[in-house]
Amino acid sequence: MADIIIKNGYILTMDSYELTQGVVVIENGTITEVAESTEQDADQIIDAKGSVVMPGFVNTHTHTGMTLLRGYADDFPLDEWLKNYIWPVEDRLTDEDAYIGTKLACLEMIKSGTTSFADMFIHIDKVAQAVKDSGMRAALSYRMIEAGNEEKGKSELDTNKRFINNWKGEAEGRIITMYGPHAPYTCSEGFLSKVKKEANHDRVGIHIHVLETESELNQMKQHYGMCSINLLDRLGFLGPDVLAAHCVWLSDDDIEILRGRGVHVSHNPVSNMKLASGVAPVPGMLDRGVNVSLGTDGCASNNNLDMFEEMKTAALLHKVESLDPTVLPARQVLEMATTSGARALGIKSGVLREGYNADVIIVDMNKPHLTPVYDIHSHLVYSASGSDVSTTIVDGRILMQDYEVVCMDEQDVLDRARTAAAGLVERAKF
Amino acid sequence: MADIIIKNGYILTMDSYELTQGVVVIENGTITEVAESTEQDADQIIDAKGSVVMPGFVNTHTHTGMTLLRGYADDFPLDEWLKNYIWPVEDRLTDEDAYIGTKLACLEMIKSGTTSFADMFIHIDKVAQAVKDSGMRAALSYRMIEAGNEEKGKSELDTNKRFINNWKGEAEGRIITMYGPHAPYTCSEGFLSKVKKEANHDRVGIHIHVLETESELNQMKQHYGMCSINLLDRLGFLGPDVLAAHCVWLSDDDIEILRGRGVHVSHNPVSNMKLASGVAPVPGMLDRGVNVSLGTDGCASNNNLDMFEEMKTAALLHKVESLDPTVLPARQVLEMATTSGARALGIKSGVLREGYNADVIIVDMNKPHLTPVYDIHSHLVYSASGSDVSTTIVDGRILMQDYEVVCMDEQDVLDRARTAAAGLVERAKF
Ligand SMILES: [Zn+2]
Ligand SMILES: [Zn+2]
Repeated sequence: MADIIIKNGYILTMDSYELTQGVVVIENGTITEVAESTEQDADQIIDAKGSVVMPGFVNTHTHTGMTLLRGYADDFPLDEWLKNYIWPVEDRLTDEDAYIGTKLACLEMIKSGTTSFADMFIHIDKVAQAVKDSGMRAALSYRMIEAGNEEKGKSELDTNKRFINNWKGEAEGRIITMYGPHAPYTCSEGFLSKVKKEANHDRVGIHIHVLETESELNQMKQHYGMCSINLLDRLGFLGPDVLAAHCVWLSDDDIEILRGRGVHVSHNPVSNMKLASGVAPVPGMLDRGVNVSLGTDGCASNNNLDMFEEMKTAALLHKVESLDPTVLPARQVLEMATTSGARALGIKSGVLREGYNADVIIVDMNKPHLTPVYDIHSHLVYSASGSDVSTTIVDGRILMQDYEVVCMDEQDVLDRARTAAAGLVERAKF
Repeated sequence: MADIIIKNGYILTMDSYELTQGVVVIENGTITEVAESTEQDADQIIDAKGSVVMPGFVNTHTHTGMTLLRGYADDFPLDEWLKNYIWPVEDRLTDEDAYIGTKLACLEMIKSGTTSFADMFIHIDKVAQAVKDSGMRAALSYRMIEAGNEEKGKSELDTNKRFINNWKGEAEGRIITMYGPHAPYTCSEGFLSKVKKEANHDRVGIHIHVLETESELNQMKQHYGMCSINLLDRLGFLGPDVLAAHCVWLSDDDIEILRGRGVHVSHNPVSNMKLASGVAPVPGMLDRGVNVSLGTDGCASNNNLDMFEEMKTAALLHKVESLDPTVLPARQVLEMATTSGARALGIKSGVLREGYNADVIIVDMNKPHLTPVYDIHSHLVYSASGSDVSTTIVDGRILMQDYEVVCMDEQDVLDRARTAAAGLVERAKF
């Protein structure tokens, strides 16, 4: 007897691009069968008639703990935004704020079809607790800023290590732990080398921001006489254990290094556009075979966590940037948001296949803006939005069914988020 | 006794940027009071607690009759897309297809908060009938392609004139009629002059595509030795009666001409990005005082009609294009999507003010991705989506209330659209 059978839906496995009617069988958190039909029975039958059954999205770069700062400050120059708005409030953020912020982010992600994400934040124990409580899957790292201060570096590394010791593999394996050195311009080369050594020792990955802005590129060239990628490579830092967010200001040589080292890149088009950081050379990276996935970045620079929107924005941005409408076709973008993301996080998700994590979503196609259907990939990327997801399953557990969130009390989370926001910033409205 | 009073909501009039709690009173299709409270009573009281009450969006460029081609062909080079996919199917499109396509488009727009739109299409009588039946407001034009053929030109102009005679001011004034010469590269200068003369005579506006692609710019330069804007200006074509869609490939001089003539521009960022047409110089136009509004373009090049998405994309695109995050701030983009659009269509909508059309929407803020709220403009542009609209009122008539469409049978429209699509294209899936 299986746990769940999803029936009558159109299955998009992402193993193949074909859309076929069939069933998905789930047992013990794992997909045990994907077929046209099944002889099995299950405790729970989900009818997916008129819907698409597909892998949940993997959001490979965000900062869920700061979700309470959603829309707190927008349309400012980057420096002013960080110094006058984001950092001062981040300093006042309590453990409880980070917990409720992450809860809110998980709620939003579950409702919009994201099943896993990669996060880098302070108050990381509370972030982990919220992930555990919500039922989602996440690769979490403590955000370390050493800024050349040896003592600070030691304490930052200790905090990250303690987090890894406490949380690695927790929540039935749904929590993956990583090191989170903020960026090459906020951490010294000595510190970055230490981080790499500890990551190797602890057998965990590293999540880092790389070349998000031209200002980082200029700083690195001035300080080291080379860009961030070259510095990291010289330190032996780069490898398939590294998840590099943004990678906007890359040269062709940098792309070649990323490819050669097997680094995973998280592309964050909405954030890069909103903060006017620039356009990452994504078509070039994809052409060379770099594993490029998609991330929303934090709510303060997006300002939502909708992976459908991120897919569409990625496809549109690179078409207009290259003046070529064939760049980043829908299928490739879908792959970035699912299988490539899972690969970046080292999880057996992002595809509906026997033996893989049962991280599955159901997208309701009975909507005006999704009618008629000719090409499902096109609709998912160019027409759909997060609000079209009706059911979200993570690790074989139903977190939302028929638009009803069952893993937490939605209204309670919204109310607590509002109360926390009001305590954090006087300007909070309602 | 008023018809409708909307109570307990946060009112965003777009007359001011302030958000205040209050009431909106509607009588005979018109807003009769916007105040903190009212002494009046009404047949219907709408409780907008926890929601934002604002003007409905004005989509200033679309082709609703071809909504059945949504997602029919994507990620192709423009030429191949038009010649091998869009035009052949457009030729097979029947009156009934255009009617049901427009019905589907109206349904989608009503559900996502658009109350008025500007359309250019063939089968325009059927488009008008669907607009009338749906309850929306629209400025409609017959799409004329003359291509230097005098006879064709005469019959095209006749068709457009007949449409204007039949439909001008119909549906209690909800239907505005316009002339629709397709573009300066598909209509001769002689024909364009005739159109202008007829438009003046009939006292109606003109809707035209201008400089969408670099290929048009090159063709015009080759043929006329000048760009489309210069040619149109030489013909005396440009004026405040002209709605020019796209305007991507403009020089500084062109912008100055548009400003001087009072031409209204419809910016279509999603379509321009998806078809890789280029980036319109919107910040430059806005700085000089050109009236720039927003349009989704048709479903075949978007592939939805969500004005929230169009607002966000506009804001993001011009920030990254200029590498300046302060460009197109949320308030300005909101203005483009409401008041500027209404000005372009010459309708008293786009603002909540006594004496204006009761074209009003209610946006439900009790959502995870809209929590917490610091700045309502930021949330509407960067966080919200069409699915957050709970209630849509056009001309004082409720078309959707509490997410329930009451002006048409939603499921019936979806079913008929699917049947029509299956008849139109063999590849239609479900
Ligand atoms: Zn980040
Ligand atoms: Zn058009």
